[in-house]
Amino acid sequence: MRALSRRSVRARSGRILLEGPQGVREAVRHAPDQVVDLYLTAETAARYPEIADAARAAGRWVHEVSEDVLAAMCDADSPQGMVAVCEWSPGELADVLASDPACLVLLAEVRDPGNLGTVIRGADAAGAAAVLVSAASVDVTSPKVVRSTAGSLFHLPVVTGLDVTETIARLQASGIVCHAADGAGERTVDEADLGPAHAWVMGNEARGLPPEVAHACDDVLRVPIHGQAESLNLAMATTLCVYASARAQRG
Amino acid sequence: MRALSRRSVRARSGRILLEGPQGVREAVRHAPDQVVDLYLTAETAARYPEIADAARAAGRWVHEVSEDVLAAMCDADSPQGMVAVCEWSPGELADVLASDPACLVLLAEVRDPGNLGTVIRGADAAGAAAVLVSAASVDVTSPKVVRSTAGSLFHLPVVTGLDVTETIARLQASGIVCHAADGAGERTVDEADLGPAHAWVMGNEARGLPPEVAHACDDVLRVPIHGQAESLNLAMATTLCVYASARAQRG
Repeated sequence: MRALSRRSVRARSGRILLEGPQGVREAVRHAPDQVVDLYLTAETAARYPEIADAARAAGRWVHEVSEDVLAAMCDADSPQGMVAVCEWSPGELADVLASDPACLVLLAEVRDPGNLGTVIRGADAAGAAAVLVSAASVDVTSPKVVRSTAGSLFHLPVVTGLDVTETIARLQASGIVCHAADGAGERTVDEADLGPAHAWVMGNEARGLPPEVAHACDDVLRVPIHGQAESLNLAMATTLCVYASARAQRG
Repeated sequence: MRALSRRSVRARSGRILLEGPQGVREAVRHAPDQVVDLYLTAETAARYPEIADAARAAGRWVHEVSEDVLAAMCDADSPQGMVAVCEWSPGELADVLASDPACLVLLAEVRDPGNLGTVIRGADAAGAAAVLVSAASVDVTSPKVVRSTAGSLFHLPVVTGLDVTETIARLQASGIVCHAADGAGERTVDEADLGPAHAWVMGNEARGLPPEVAHACDDVLRVPIHGQAESLNLAMATTLCVYASARAQRG
């Protein structure tokens, strides 16, 4: 279990740690076959009987452990009494493109684990088809990212290790419009035609998008700032973008 | 400086700690009179000369300190080389109501500091008139909240220590429609008429809104979930709500 706190071990084993009832419930519900083992304290088992029951019903191993053992297994300061070992593998860009996606998110260089997890959760909520993550971004399988997806990692494909400009070219070759999201955009997200299949290309938290990436995109759009805030954080901006897509594409 | 990490000292002195260049830049730009002292390392001074220059131009004290001294002053693991002592006081509900607000946010019980700060930042970005915070919520002046507002604490009034049902009654008496935001809402945020002056009433991160609070509101609206995500986090949901208001009220 402790070894899974190392990125190399997660990559080699194809397994990740999923901490807390919210994420575990979603994994047991949407991807029970990917749950290998579930560890929880007696208190948590009593508080969330439906989670352990669903895991057992799906033929998964459920282990009751002490709080000390659980704390020793986990990365979180507060694992909330429950942790699951899950199988997880990144999606393939070719499969995503073959699925005729209406809305995608491409992250050029996201560095904060909480931001990455929240972006995946927001993309899932808005019904985006997949999240595409550059090689320069934080590792999707890190426990803090997994936690902040709140289970969404098991809901939609997340493709990792991508070269951003190469990916933009592949998306465009497949007829997917690439909108760079940047505060410097001339038009706002609400002024663009988001009906056709498209991808939102999001930059780094502090530096935004490199000029060559913005240039490779079909246009640059901004989320309007009506008050005095200098900017929005990456997860909020991305969530507003994918919800604008949902309004345009789903009415 | 260290004493300002205690809530009681902040409340008594009317001073808070503002960590990191992003927030300090906004305070120096929008509320220079509220900046008392600015402490920064030689490296940070060289990297952000415009911040120290603007502070000096406004007649503020600027002190160059070593990294160790700065770390000892701060709550953050990484204060990013800069911290300011600022005067800050909560807004008054009567003043907010007198300003004829078109859009407000009322937080019934927000517990996570990052969520509260991000909500204030999102409300500012969407042009909301103020953020109203219940007595049951996390302290607005805690360094982690201040950090995640990214300076927005100095852009719009934040009223604290409120009783939620009493506040809803006062808002309604002033002609402000109160929309409870909850996943159980029958209508979506996009289906409601957000033209008239209104407030978004947001619940606790885990438990949502207590039934009596939702009942006191004029209606209950939900952010639509198109994918498989169970929910959005509080900051994302609030940001989507206030941006729906901005679209309706600002076109």
